[in-house]
Amino acid sequence: MKQLFVVKIGGHVIDDPQRLRQFLYDFVGLPGHKILVHGGGKIATETGKRMGLESVYVAGRRVTDADTLRLVTMVYGGLVNKEIVALLQAAGANAIGLTGADGNLMKAVKRPVAGIDYGYVGDIQQGGVNTGLLSVLTENNMLPVLAPLTHDGEGSMLNTNADTIAQEVAVAMSSAYQVQLIYCFEKQGVLRDPEDETSVIPDIRKDDFKRLKIAGAITNGMIPKLDNAFAAISAGVQQVIIGQANEIRALIAGEAGTKIY
Amino acid sequence: MKQLFVVKIGGHVIDDPQRLRQFLYDFVGLPGHKILVHGGGKIATETGKRMGLESVYVAGRRVTDADTLRLVTMVYGGLVNKEIVALLQAAGANAIGLTGADGNLMKAVKRPVAGIDYGYVGDIQQGGVNTGLLSVLTENNMLPVLAPLTHDGEGSMLNTNADTIAQEVAVAMSSAYQVQLIYCFEKQGVLRDPEDETSVIPDIRKDDFKRLKIAGAITNGMIPKLDNAFAAISAGVQQVIIGQANEIRALIAGEAGTKIY
Repeated sequence: MKQLFVVKIGGHVIDDPQRLRQFLYDFVGLPGHKILVHGGGKIATETGKRMGLESVYVAGRRVTDADTLRLVTMVYGGLVNKEIVALLQAAGANAIGLTGADGNLMKAVKRPVAGIDYGYVGDIQQGGVNTGLLSVLTENNMLPVLAPLTHDGEGSMLNTNADTIAQEVAVAMSSAYQVQLIYCFEKQGVLRDPEDETSVIPDIRKDDFKRLKIAGAITNGMIPKLDNAFAAISAGVQQVIIGQANEIRALIAGEAGTKIY
Repeated sequence: MKQLFVVKIGGHVIDDPQRLRQFLYDFVGLPGHKILVHGGGKIATETGKRMGLESVYVAGRRVTDADTLRLVTMVYGGLVNKEIVALLQAAGANAIGLTGADGNLMKAVKRPVAGIDYGYVGDIQQGGVNTGLLSVLTENNMLPVLAPLTHDGEGSMLNTNADTIAQEVAVAMSSAYQVQLIYCFEKQGVLRDPEDETSVIPDIRKDDFKRLKIAGAITNGMIPKLDNAFAAISAGVQQVIIGQANEIRALIAGEAGTKIY
């Protein structure tokens, strides 16, 4: 099977034009087929503020009301996505920016209200990723750049977490490719000591994870990320790597970050 | 050769959700291959106002400064484009929304400063339309939905008039398809008397156009539209139709609007 890298970059890279440009050049240099998934960054919150929209949070989670949905559709689907695509084109990659509505790429169901109404938030269903379209594009040497937006098939866009999109796409593509899923975040990897950037754990197997959790060596914020990573591996993804965007080449070479398998 | 409809809709349809939805359902019902090009509508100006941006005009034409480029990339490439794509998906068409950067679909050159600096405005060059990508998409039963945005290949998006994009795409696709270019605007067609909506001229040939211009029977605003239409026909487009969006079926059946050939 052919190799496919599904790489997710978050807001901290997107918010810094210099780092973004450097990351994209490094990313283009990776061998073989690639899919990039991007988050939103501060720019959505800042644009919302300029437009007089206040972010609403319930139980620590952002609520996507109708105005916020329009905001994230503009900022994620328009501004951030096209900025990345234009830069990738300049870097020599034939990037194509897509939301879940485009070519019915990612169909989702509006999250049912159970106590908390998160608004226009979409959960991708089994079979919701259009792997056929992604394969046609990658086999035609295009590089899909996915915004964290899905659609409900009934005329509405939906807001979906970028980490989740990366995971769902990686799992769905595993039927046809050997997929490596790479989460770029602000730390160098999973740390033994959250205060010490040199304490990166180079690899974690399922058994290690249980032991590390019991020993309290993994911080709370990291646990859902790792749960997701192991879920992806159980569902067919070959390997998950967590590390910093500016080390993408070293991450793939196994010289930096944390490998999960 | 196969038939292809290139249809351009303007702001007056986009600004009215009810009319937009009706138009898109009618549009989906047209037989054969289709490409939709959309303009911006008032929503860009309104969003700009909410963000504290003032539109700058020089000699009656809007200037695209860096802030305005970000605004139109958000609104045209994100909000308007994805709203249309999501509605088309709901109407049963496999729409895919694209700007000129996506898949290097439309490459342009930043308009040189000659007296007036229009800012980040792009002019599509000969060969600038990626007809291969459009053919792959349409032959795979996808319906391209094009935002009025191009890119310079050096990392920047550019603002390009939607009428021009429709014309350039129609001309470029004429090498492989019998193309009909349909401009939907606010009037029922080219009128003999601009005050009288029933005075639609059903068809105009090149010779008629000269006579009508000399006789002063065509208003100033219409002349560049018709000049463009005849330019498109000279460059291989089979027919240009000008009329109202809510009559799209009648326009194609030759029962409404003005035909130019």
